[in-house]
Amino acid sequence: MNHTVRIIGIDPGLQRTGWGVIEATGNRVSFVAAGIVTSDAKRGLPERLVELANGLGKVLDDHSPDEAAVEETFVNDNPRATLKLGQARGIALMLPASRLLPVAEYAPNQIKKTVVGAGHAEKQQIRHMVRILLPTAKFDGDDAADALAIAICHSHHRGAASRLAELNAAEEARAPRIAAAFGRARVVRSRGG
Amino acid sequence: MNHTVRIIGIDPGLQRTGWGVIEATGNRVSFVAAGIVTSDAKRGLPERLVELANGLGKVLDDHSPDEAAVEETFVNDNPRATLKLGQARGIALMLPASRLLPVAEYAPNQIKKTVVGAGHAEKQQIRHMVRILLPTAKFDGDDAADALAIAICHSHHRGAASRLAELNAAEEARAPRIAAAFGRARVVRSRGG
Repeated sequence: MNHTVRIIGIDPGLQRTGWGVIEATGNRVSFVAAGIVTSDAKRGLPERLVELANGLGKVLDDHSPDEAAVEETFVNDNPRATLKLGQARGIALMLPASRLLPVAEYAPNQIKKTVVGAGHAEKQQIRHMVRILLPTAKFDGDDAADALAIAICHSHHRGAASRLAELNAAEEARAPRIAAAFGRARVVRSRGG
Repeated sequence: MNHTVRIIGIDPGLQRTGWGVIEATGNRVSFVAAGIVTSDAKRGLPERLVELANGLGKVLDDHSPDEAAVEETFVNDNPRATLKLGQARGIALMLPASRLLPVAEYAPNQIKKTVVGAGHAEKQQIRHMVRILLPTAKFDGDDAADALAIAICHSHHRGAASRLAELNAAEEARAPRIAAAFGRARVVRSRGG
């Protein structure tokens, strides 16, 4: 039952999208890679979204994750900022799903609570806990640390959904991979929501 | 100078994304095709965004437009609706740009003013004017009519930018197509903004 699953966490943003890949085996997690995808603020919005899509596509090519987790956007009082983030987030959600990865979403407070133990943790505490949980992790900046925290959060919450999926796996073995992937995605999301 | 350019207008939405393709030759416009891409509300958000991307991708494959125009999102008081629309809009902007089409953006009032002559026109007036300007147009519903109005708006506003691009075309003939496409995109947008 305890096979290894590779998870990518994504913290979307138009300027900087953080990503972090971990491997989870049962309750153990280990660091694979992390970084950020940036877009050139001097270019137009459509081209910047292409930069994000190409950058994230390369990360998915390079590290072949099995599942993805994306931070739920905090809907704030600034509609322009919400719109900007929404556009980047659309790319971050669509891209792994287009490769048939199950994509889970987690609220910021749920991520903090899972990784630090408190829903209102500071950036610094998240970074600290990510370093403790993934001692071999190499990353620069909060965006990559947040993305690793999202991946860790998913590794903790996917448990029951994952076991259910494994029980079904034998039956689905002959079904197309798309059905299995979307089936699992729905189960994971219903726990994460 | 009066060569024909094929324009796709896109009215993005998570539930229904309207699209309309026209051909513009100087000041004359003619209808090519129009329709809507829908996503299944019973599926998860990542999969719905993939449905939009695949649907729009097929439209771009089928009708091979030269340029794209997308409605600027009206930032309203409902942050959840703004976020939802932003995510769909990210796909609508990224997809044609990823195929190296110049992508222009127009505010709703600018589209109404161009097509109807008044910035606060009703849906019904837009539909009426689209039918007059494109007498052979076949479309169902307001989303496709809005998308055709966006394409018409772009055909009116791209003029100067287009002539500038044509003047530069000879010099750019040996440059990679990507440079020319992004160069034109910037010019168009600076007029449209």
